[in-house]
Amino acid sequence: MPDRAPAATRRSRLRALLRRSGVDVLLILDLKNIRYLTGFSGSDGALLVGAGKPTLLVDGRYTTQAAGEAPGTRVVLYREKAAGIADALSAGGYGHVGFEPSVMTVDVFGALRRKARKVRWKPLPSELGSIRAVKDSVEIGHIRRAIRIAAGALRSALAGFRPGVCERDIALELDYEMRKRGAEAPSFDTIVASGPNSALPHARPGRRKIRPGDFVVVDYGAVSGGYHSDETCTFAVGRAGRRHRALYTVVKEAHDRALETVRPGVACRDVDAAARAVIEKAGYGPRFTHGTGHGLGLDVHEAPRLSALSEAVLEEGMVITIEPGIYLPGSCGIRIEDTVLVTRDGFRVLTEFSKELQVIG
Amino acid sequence: MPDRAPAATRRSRLRALLRRSGVDVLLILDLKNIRYLTGFSGSDGALLVGAGKPTLLVDGRYTTQAAGEAPGTRVVLYREKAAGIADALSAGGYGHVGFEPSVMTVDVFGALRRKARKVRWKPLPSELGSIRAVKDSVEIGHIRRAIRIAAGALRSALAGFRPGVCERDIALELDYEMRKRGAEAPSFDTIVASGPNSALPHARPGRRKIRPGDFVVVDYGAVSGGYHSDETCTFAVGRAGRRHRALYTVVKEAHDRALETVRPGVACRDVDAAARAVIEKAGYGPRFTHGTGHGLGLDVHEAPRLSALSEAVLEEGMVITIEPGIYLPGSCGIRIEDTVLVTRDGFRVLTEFSKELQVIG
Repeated sequence: MPDRAPAATRRSRLRALLRRSGVDVLLILDLKNIRYLTGFSGSDGALLVGAGKPTLLVDGRYTTQAAGEAPGTRVVLYREKAAGIADALSAGGYGHVGFEPSVMTVDVFGALRRKARKVRWKPLPSELGSIRAVKDSVEIGHIRRAIRIAAGALRSALAGFRPGVCERDIALELDYEMRKRGAEAPSFDTIVASGPNSALPHARPGRRKIRPGDFVVVDYGAVSGGYHSDETCTFAVGRAGRRHRALYTVVKEAHDRALETVRPGVACRDVDAAARAVIEKAGYGPRFTHGTGHGLGLDVHEAPRLSALSEAVLEEGMVITIEPGIYLPGSCGIRIEDTVLVTRDGFRVLTEFSKELQVIG
Repeated sequence: MPDRAPAATRRSRLRALLRRSGVDVLLILDLKNIRYLTGFSGSDGALLVGAGKPTLLVDGRYTTQAAGEAPGTRVVLYREKAAGIADALSAGGYGHVGFEPSVMTVDVFGALRRKARKVRWKPLPSELGSIRAVKDSVEIGHIRRAIRIAAGALRSALAGFRPGVCERDIALELDYEMRKRGAEAPSFDTIVASGPNSALPHARPGRRKIRPGDFVVVDYGAVSGGYHSDETCTFAVGRAGRRHRALYTVVKEAHDRALETVRPGVACRDVDAAARAVIEKAGYGPRFTHGTGHGLGLDVHEAPRLSALSEAVLEEGMVITIEPGIYLPGSCGIRIEDTVLVTRDGFRVLTEFSKELQVIG
């Protein structure tokens, strides 16, 4: 639970958005946004942020939890969510309501419009999505803790590693070790992709047994205090041939060049371009099939995006991943990913594993 | 992957709904519905089901997987989802489109309306939600496999059980054992709630160490082939006092009476009423704070709901849970849950654990 101060500070930033948007109140339905703005971590609810004390609407399961987790809010119980929201809007005298169009569903919106007929609704697209991009010290603490848990688990899983073990069993041990160390959950379905499977950026770990000469891509993370870690290590098993080493060097170079561009004021698309230039120059441009990175926090993918199309600019306090990759279908793939904090004059790498090529097993 | 036959049969049932609704085509965005109707198990996509061959729209990550998992569909690649859907609607000459209002978000709907200006849109509320309620033999096979995995894991976790172990560690072992036995994931965040925590129906397993004299509620399940199991056992630790035994007997009686009502043609609210009558008669009516059960399959909670407000009627082939409970805040709670198949002339209990009171540890 964040202490009172950060949640209040976060809400004050939201109020600036409120004024700019010309609405009386923001209706927040995204549960991660609600957690960010109040501390409430339940699985359902709604938040109204206007000029006064925010109203946190929850169902009967969560009244006690909400009162404990969300100091500085007025906790209101609803029996039916849309009716509860409509009543709260009416009680607050709110006429012009901003909402998250990527979270609000058509049926809930229809119900709200029927129940709160006088309200004018305004979708708030991109700005609200980036309120969480700059992290405060409480958040950075959670992310660091998640990274520490994840790294400890990977070290432990690697200690037991030997060729002949299947991908699925490594993923299982890694997940188990993360939870044993206090992770609330893995950040996402852990990826352990070996040999030709490493050429699939979103491979699911399977029954394939890892063999000498394979690359193994391990993309994993832990959740702690609701916050995610995210790191990818590509290991060589038993040995690394000349061609594999050369390929790894290209991705590592792309990773390092992108990293060096990171500082406040730099366009996210320029970070992406720095990685992409290295890979293109080596002749693998079309084999780098995703963006260079993303913000992470309460969601594993959040603002800013680091891609060729991104309009975002780096700011001090953002926490982002740098993760270039090359994927050669049917043969092998490499991805190298660190999580970094944007500092006042550059960056600090938060992830703990060395990204030099490591031969394991 | 389901074989071709069940997916085609499932789609033919959907076409009856199509005719009744007076639309040309159904746009399906719910990923579980897409999996049910095609076999495709990716994390994003859209499905159009009209008179001809269904169109499965996916992004670049999933074209190969979709072609393999979804025979009998036309797989179409999109770069941007709303534009891809609009193009496919236009190519099919569809003018009147049914959609899932509880899945469609306001921003996607806005984009679709801008990009497909001639289309008339019709929300399809409840009917579509229940197309998956009656299970075919392939689905029942998956659920049985999930139940077998989960039960094996609980047996193994109980073998290592002793007082002094904390809730969190039991949940962790149980999750680990389920995955070791082939579960894709736990069905939901496993509940292990002991002593006073057992009075919270949605408790999260914590650091509390289990003591002699506790009740421990274990609500858990495994996912296999995309299908969920769901079972709750309440164990007594070390000993069970007279008051605890009496309370358990009430919940067990409620469970058994509800079970006996299960057969095709019975209203779901009557199953709920049978359980509730026992608990009310014993004076605990207000302490039974949730419905008696729910359907389960690709979602852990799906149609039909077994509650006082349910309009649903049981049909042969439905798979439902029966899970009455009593919760005494600050003291203890008991929930007893089986998963059952509605058969031609009654029911078959699918879960494997005995629901007689067991004293463990």
